[in-house]
Amino acid sequence: MSPIQGVYCPNIVPYNADRSINEAELERMTEWLVEKGISGLYPNGSTGEFIRLSFEERLRVVEIMARANRGRVPILAGAAEANIDLVLEAARRYADLGCRAISVTGPYYYKVKPESVEYYFREIAAKSPIDVVLYNIPQFSNEITVESVQRLALDCPRIVGIKDSSRDMPRFLNTLHAVKPQRPDFAVLVGCEEILFPTLMMGGDGGTIATSGVVPEVVMRLYKSFLKGDFDTCRDIQLKLLDIINVMLQAGNFPDGFRSGVELRGFKTGEPRQPLGPTDGKTVEQAREVIACLLADCGFSEAARYCRRHQGARTGPKTFNRLDVESIVREVIRDL
Amino acid sequence: MSPIQGVYCPNIVPYNADRSINEAELERMTEWLVEKGISGLYPNGSTGEFIRLSFEERLRVVEIMARANRGRVPILAGAAEANIDLVLEAARRYADLGCRAISVTGPYYYKVKPESVEYYFREIAAKSPIDVVLYNIPQFSNEITVESVQRLALDCPRIVGIKDSSRDMPRFLNTLHAVKPQRPDFAVLVGCEEILFPTLMMGGDGGTIATSGVVPEVVMRLYKSFLKGDFDTCRDIQLKLLDIINVMLQAGNFPDGFRSGVELRGFKTGEPRQPLGPTDGKTVEQAREVIACLLADCGFSEAARYCRRHQGARTGPKTFNRLDVESIVREVIRDL
Amino acid sequence: MSPIQGVYCPNIVPYNADRSINEAELERMTEWLVEKGISGLYPNGSTGEFIRLSFEERLRVVEIMARANRGRVPILAGAAEANIDLVLEAARRYADLGCRAISVTGPYYYKVKPESVEYYFREIAAKSPIDVVLYNIPQFSNEITVESVQRLALDCPRIVGIKDSSRDMPRFLNTLHAVKPQRPDFAVLVGCEEILFPTLMMGGDGGTIATSGVVPEVVMRLYKSFLKGDFDTCRDIQLKLLDIINVMLQAGNFPDGFRSGVELRGFKTGEPRQPLGPTDGKTVEQAREVIACLLADCGFSEAARYCRRHQGARTGPKTFNRLDVESIVREVIRDL
Amino acid sequence: MSPIQGVYCPNIVPYNADRSINEAELERMTEWLVEKGISGLYPNGSTGEFIRLSFEERLRVVEIMARANRGRVPILAGAAEANIDLVLEAARRYADLGCRAISVTGPYYYKVKPESVEYYFREIAAKSPIDVVLYNIPQFSNEITVESVQRLALDCPRIVGIKDSSRDMPRFLNTLHAVKPQRPDFAVLVGCEEILFPTLMMGGDGGTIATSGVVPEVVMRLYKSFLKGDFDTCRDIQLKLLDIINVMLQAGNFPDGFRSGVELRGFKTGEPRQPLGPTDGKTVEQAREVIACLLADCGFSEAARYCRRHQGARTGPKTFNRLDVESIVREVIRDL
Repeated sequence: MSPIQGVYCPNIVPYNADRSINEAELERMTEWLVEKGISGLYPNGSTGEFIRLSFEERLRVVEIMARANRGRVPILAGAAEANIDLVLEAARRYADLGCRAISVTGPYYYKVKPESVEYYFREIAAKSPIDVVLYNIPQFSNEITVESVQRLALDCPRIVGIKDSSRDMPRFLNTLHAVKPQRPDFAVLVGCEEILFPTLMMGGDGGTIATSGVVPEVVMRLYKSFLKGDFDTCRDIQLKLLDIINVMLQAGNFPDGFRSGVELRGFKTGEPRQPLGPTDGKTVEQAREVIACLLADCGFSEAARYCRRHQGARTGPKTFNRLDVESIVREVIRDL
Repeated sequence: MSPIQGVYCPNIVPYNADRSINEAELERMTEWLVEKGISGLYPNGSTGEFIRLSFEERLRVVEIMARANRGRVPILAGAAEANIDLVLEAARRYADLGCRAISVTGPYYYKVKPESVEYYFREIAAKSPIDVVLYNIPQFSNEITVESVQRLALDCPRIVGIKDSSRDMPRFLNTLHAVKPQRPDFAVLVGCEEILFPTLMMGGDGGTIATSGVVPEVVMRLYKSFLKGDFDTCRDIQLKLLDIINVMLQAGNFPDGFRSGVELRGFKTGEPRQPLGPTDGKTVEQAREVIACLLADCGFSEAARYCRRHQGARTGPKTFNRLDVESIVREVIRDL
Repeated sequence: MSPIQGVYCPNIVPYNADRSINEAELERMTEWLVEKGISGLYPNGSTGEFIRLSFEERLRVVEIMARANRGRVPILAGAAEANIDLVLEAARRYADLGCRAISVTGPYYYKVKPESVEYYFREIAAKSPIDVVLYNIPQFSNEITVESVQRLALDCPRIVGIKDSSRDMPRFLNTLHAVKPQRPDFAVLVGCEEILFPTLMMGGDGGTIATSGVVPEVVMRLYKSFLKGDFDTCRDIQLKLLDIINVMLQAGNFPDGFRSGVELRGFKTGEPRQPLGPTDGKTVEQAREVIACLLADCGFSEAARYCRRHQGARTGPKTFNRLDVESIVREVIRDL
Repeated sequence: MSPIQGVYCPNIVPYNADRSINEAELERMTEWLVEKGISGLYPNGSTGEFIRLSFEERLRVVEIMARANRGRVPILAGAAEANIDLVLEAARRYADLGCRAISVTGPYYYKVKPESVEYYFREIAAKSPIDVVLYNIPQFSNEITVESVQRLALDCPRIVGIKDSSRDMPRFLNTLHAVKPQRPDFAVLVGCEEILFPTLMMGGDGGTIATSGVVPEVVMRLYKSFLKGDFDTCRDIQLKLLDIINVMLQAGNFPDGFRSGVELRGFKTGEPRQPLGPTDGKTVEQAREVIACLLADCGFSEAARYCRRHQGARTGPKTFNRLDVESIVREVIRDL
């Protein structure tokens, strides 16, 4: 099997005005992401609002994207379902659709003891018809401790990697250090664009990077620069990515900022499933303009007309100046 | 409509060996709870593991319990679904089944801004065909701030109460103080048995009390003693309830301790949906014995044979001694 | 020795314009508190900003207050020093000044393991020349677990009580339940005015109540009403105390709101040691006006001229209406 | 003035049997650190237990170390005192002793609002006779937000850097990105050895690294390898440093593990100021053996006799094998 590495895109889900899934737009977005050169697709991630979809909707999202992908890139399908039996049912469906692996968070809502979290994954690993990637996101679900990751990596061949969205770099490095010497093929991916380059530099295998759904060209440029050993470019892009992610994280409720970014790239994203209060809605409007300027400065012309210059904003439009964006786009396209 | 008050029981869900719902046992448990004099039923609460059931299973739980109840006590049905449209679909079903109201937590998993949490409930209130009880449990889902509760109580007649499981007594009192002067019919219920009597004393309307699924006689005795103004008995029972809840909270993962307690009262609870690691499993075994002794001391003979006396345990079996349990049972039965 | 019970006042420290201690005003405030009928004095508490004073200043505060008190009420002296040897040095000084006991928080700044926290108190208890009250305030210092409190109460006669400022009512009740059966003289005091009446009702011995430095008449009325079994008055005052404490907690940084309240009662409080940014300073100004109105409504005429009525504020001035404040003052004075 | 960069050592304080400071050993340790090639000294950091010393002891520590240093390396002196006036008094003393700058944490114990934290530093910056380094350690004291750091860097020439011990790599990068473009001389130092190399790679200026008090040779090797562009060695050492820091963080209470490590390098560290319970004491014993083995594997012969091999431990002694430690020592000595 192909190893899991590179940049996987945890895409948002576009909705219609009645908050049902906009299937046509989801298909078009999938095509766009693959064309832009993303390493892999990652439906039903946190950015994909898996928790706000029904079980049937999650299956449908993967079905649509797998069809649009036509086997071009591997698919890591989020399968953090309500209980083990439903995780396994989803796993069987995603295996049938040709997905590369499923990704499963620790159990959410309740506090579950660390050992029981580990046994949750042991049972999934024993019964899944498809490879499993651990998804550690302790902000929202029970942490999978480094010790558990190490034991699972040693004991369960079905578990082929971890996606760590804890934003905790020491934890990431401890995971690398605990797992790689004995199982070098175990993918250690970061789910936090702020530290993509540092984790690559330390031996990480890539990441599931939400901004890659908005600026796939930029994120892929960072990754490809790393593969070429061009660390200065990596550092420059890494710092500039901070501007984009910071603005998107401040807009409304997660993932409203990412939805705005995708919309500025030319997609209809529709009504959010989580309603916004009036004040919170204004933060989305404000963020949208800043994102538009950032995108315009990156050379993404779709966004330029929504950019009205603001004065004095910290995450203002000038930050991307020194990045030769056209060359990014050219290079990415050439690589395809 | 009847006001929401007294002790509602957030029952556990019994499973079969294959982790499917044991419908016969759920029906029998419902009958037992109603016979024991519980004020109301509360399916699909946190104790009811709503998050580990599928949407269809949650509907089924309410259907079974409503049928077994035969209209004898009001039903507050948990409807914390994945998105507003699913909440409303559940609400319609529960209205058809004759439920008194639905209970809805703040959105879970993601962090949602307080104002947007409020607008989530505003939309539900505007469209629900049935009364709504806010369910504040900030340990597991986004907090509904006191300010939001106050505004929702004033603006939304459909919202008829709050169940506060925050374990935060100052917050509970601030809620009472913010809401009751302008809307005295708004039910303020506590979801934490440790402070049931203090909240009643301060003007609370009752609670959703998980231990009432294990010792309904004891919890109802506290409530009825309060109604009679017998505060000394309330205090005695309140302190003794601490022993029971403390042991149950320490066993395995929530709600494993409650499942053990229910089993000791004579019900099959089956395999837990969240698997237990071996060490965590031992804590359930140990807790089970302590619970058995506590129940035996309360006069619940079903549990007596599982009680082997332990020495020196803090939450040991002697703590219930001075409570004349037989008189409790007699009185509860007489009141029915 | 006299048991520790009733309402102890953790007073603020008045400063001069240069932020040195205003000793004359501290003396005058002490006299005022004793005259108002407070059960005991509590210098160097958190409200007394012990952490912002030097070691010598803390000694000086107790010296001034002990002198002004002239033995009329017991003094509980805060002695949360940098290390055990300094705690003991302070204890010797406070013993010489005739204090009733010292109060010591868990170690602060670092995270210390629970067992080591317990051994910190074991050593203090073994060597202190004066009784010790545990001070649990997990927001700011390492928690003293209920299990540790129970063991310390059983093993250390020098430790005569706990002041619990955790705001955690279940924890308070578990402490009562764990300690009182075997050591009924062990004082369990609450450090959170929001729940003073509920804790008294459950068997607590009183509290260290910061608002008693601003409205000693009101807080003492609650306590005396409880002793008389007049629970309706207790409940009314308890709910109304929420307005006062809520406003004071929102003003600037702790304890700026309490400093404003004391100032409105006629004392010079001077420059705060922790500087206020301009926006934060405005919150103090705004809170000051609300506090003034609350005090005016309580009949405290010193504050009336600073009260300008605001419309629509939740914690507005009307909340105290039904409380016959003149009768409070009259009764408190009669009791002296 | 010399820029603040490289690796500063936040040394522990050795005590006597009576817990007073062992001044002779502190002097000898200072000499040893300077000889080992450390970039700068950092007395009164968190590792230096500033919070457990008296004001006079903190002054004394700096005096002893400044004298032993004899001007060879710059000294960053911790001056996180109880209030601004005491911070400034310490600053004057440390200026007289020739220190390079003071380091000041956000106010501790109470929660202080972010703007007021900023104004605390504005006042210190305006009045200090010596340069100031912000010390961000939100685990133990109020956070200094990135926005505040940016404004302070722009407005206050006296503030010359930040030491960030938050362990939060995204925050570190946001600080770099917010400050460096406009003030390139502002030192951004990391206080977390787990991420020293990644922060250097991204443009950081160095760190205050507690393990440098135990293995200065190893940490300096990492830093010097970075300066030479030898990133592979940096990565290898970085990962291996994890073993050392992990064990030291698990031993007893902070900084007991560091004290054990220093003892194994041949210094008397004496009785800890924070007493250890018996179980916690055992964790120090166990950690001590693991540290001894790690040090032995690094070629530090003083520690070898305390190393008894353990089987199967994750942070076992074999992890340092591939690091040619003798060459490290040789190179460091050659560089002096």
